[in-house]
Amino acid sequence: METLMDLEEIITRIRPLKEDAQNLARNRLDSLVKPLGSLGRLEELSVQLAGITGDMKRRYNKKAVVIMCADNGVYEEGVSAAPQVVTLMQSLNFQKKITGIGVLSKLSNSEMIVIDIGINSDVVSENMINKKIRKGTNNLAKKPAMTREEVIQAITIGFEEVQKLQLTGFSVVGTGEMGLGNTTTSSLILMALTDCTVEEAVGKGAGLTEEAFVHKKEIVRKAFDLHKPNKNDPIDVLEKVGGFDIAGLVGVYLGAAYCRFPVVIDGVISAAAALIAFQLCPAARDFMIPSHGSREPGYQAAIQKLGMKPYFDLEMRLGEGTGCPFTFLLIDAAQMILHQMATFDEAAMDNSKMIDIRNT
Amino acid sequence: METLMDLEEIITRIRPLKEDAQNLARNRLDSLVKPLGSLGRLEELSVQLAGITGDMKRRYNKKAVVIMCADNGVYEEGVSAAPQVVTLMQSLNFQKKITGIGVLSKLSNSEMIVIDIGINSDVVSENMINKKIRKGTNNLAKKPAMTREEVIQAITIGFEEVQKLQLTGFSVVGTGEMGLGNTTTSSLILMALTDCTVEEAVGKGAGLTEEAFVHKKEIVRKAFDLHKPNKNDPIDVLEKVGGFDIAGLVGVYLGAAYCRFPVVIDGVISAAAALIAFQLCPAARDFMIPSHGSREPGYQAAIQKLGMKPYFDLEMRLGEGTGCPFTFLLIDAAQMILHQMATFDEAAMDNSKMIDIRNT
Repeated sequence: METLMDLEEIITRIRPLKEDAQNLARNRLDSLVKPLGSLGRLEELSVQLAGITGDMKRRYNKKAVVIMCADNGVYEEGVSAAPQVVTLMQSLNFQKKITGIGVLSKLSNSEMIVIDIGINSDVVSENMINKKIRKGTNNLAKKPAMTREEVIQAITIGFEEVQKLQLTGFSVVGTGEMGLGNTTTSSLILMALTDCTVEEAVGKGAGLTEEAFVHKKEIVRKAFDLHKPNKNDPIDVLEKVGGFDIAGLVGVYLGAAYCRFPVVIDGVISAAAALIAFQLCPAARDFMIPSHGSREPGYQAAIQKLGMKPYFDLEMRLGEGTGCPFTFLLIDAAQMILHQMATFDEAAMDNSKMIDIRNT
Repeated sequence: METLMDLEEIITRIRPLKEDAQNLARNRLDSLVKPLGSLGRLEELSVQLAGITGDMKRRYNKKAVVIMCADNGVYEEGVSAAPQVVTLMQSLNFQKKITGIGVLSKLSNSEMIVIDIGINSDVVSENMINKKIRKGTNNLAKKPAMTREEVIQAITIGFEEVQKLQLTGFSVVGTGEMGLGNTTTSSLILMALTDCTVEEAVGKGAGLTEEAFVHKKEIVRKAFDLHKPNKNDPIDVLEKVGGFDIAGLVGVYLGAAYCRFPVVIDGVISAAAALIAFQLCPAARDFMIPSHGSREPGYQAAIQKLGMKPYFDLEMRLGEGTGCPFTFLLIDAAQMILHQMATFDEAAMDNSKMIDIRNT
């Protein structure tokens, strides 16, 4: 998979959800000892999962968050509050389980797959998988962030990672990222794909001063005018204003749909990647599962365009994939109600006639 | 604790959150390897928990959902879609782990404490703790649901149950209920305490037909006019239009505040009980933790009056305490970030100078 032709083939091979399995799940849910539909979106999630795998009884014992780590050339425009080396620092810290995602991963017993897809550093560590394309993208304020070939290369890395996860027994994946400047790139992607304004797309990221925030919006506005990314060509959008991390996550979404994995969307950057994947392959959306409503403003534009609603609202804006562990637990819950709750028939007591509390 | 005097003494003894511990927690959160405040409401929850226990390092290893089970005399007015024996059936089923709460409890490794506080049945089972006050309340469409003494008795049962939990090593509790007719009683409580209208308070419960729904609203309207519950006397409200289950949960909330336990609010019935407890003892509110946004309409009135916002939105309306297991996991997460995430100092690598990505 190294050319655009291969990407097109993959997209063709992504099949829709399996309706038979979804109907089986719906029928079972409607027979369980509870008022019809009373577990709400948890029931919808059960049905979606059945459609994804075709297997009502699938367990999601091995879970992973793929964290794409890369630097962005636009950093040099002063769009970020922190030193660029923080991308490297935090990427090395993930496997130490001392960051947000490192700690929360324990909650859902999930693993982290940390990929250096373009950190601006020569450091090699067993804490990261080395898939470095280049030491950061170009400064998109001046020229396209990457070449078309690099976009495809990054997507391929993400795609192949999910295939590897499948081979090693994983069955669900979440999306995470680390890279200074990536709220800038995701803002530009969202402006291109959702027609939202600079004001609706750009937030303070990891914590800009008011002055730096105004500057960031100006940089985004100018870059958008410079590139005029073609909304009908998502690869063009990535090439001009994307990042290696986001392109890598596009590959994760496509890989998940191809391997028939549920894939969890985290915050705004992850949602921008989801939107690109949806644009490339509408069927891929059905494999995506939203998590939390990020406080970064662009998130709203992204999730609405995807036609989704987050499951929870913790007002988080950390990234790293921190919305995934809770959502893995929701996935477990959705599976458990389907398998472990009794139907009215099953629950009928020995000495009592069967009682039906369903809506009559 | 058998008289109203004792209840007053308990209320006097409920102390506010511990500010010192909250400040310690805030300072630690602000030093962790993440942008300031970027874990949003999870950070607020960490601070609340520190204030509740006074102990930043508390673990919540033993968790329980107290499920108050009782019948309501108003059932005979046709306000429920199911046969009354369903209250008993489901109450017996909880410990079999085949109902919604039974299955979801496994997710958070929590126990169920099932209390028969007034089921209309003579069945005694090891699956339930027998604290039956009476076989269901009076029909509130005709007379007060219970006596003032019974209200106090029910509150006492809930209060003492939390004390028992504390003695056996539990440190967090959730609220659940089972009882046909209890969306009717909770609607009346909410109308009394929040000034919401019948339309805003009454939902279809476990699944009424449109015709039965209209009838239910009519019953509620007439009962409200009959009793004119005194909003300044929450015990009066319970006596006239409450239920044993709700009064028992009021005791759980007061017991949690007294024992300095975090206590999770489930859906509309649980929230109605929370509102009574808040009215009796404003300080008790600070020990309460919301969970999901129930689809039952009265929930909105209740949670707004409590000044809270649910953490997640699964469009559930099952009751039983089904919102609690996820929230227990949020509590675990809030504790884990506080204890297990590194500060910038702790995370500084051997061969790298300390990098600060905090808001400057």
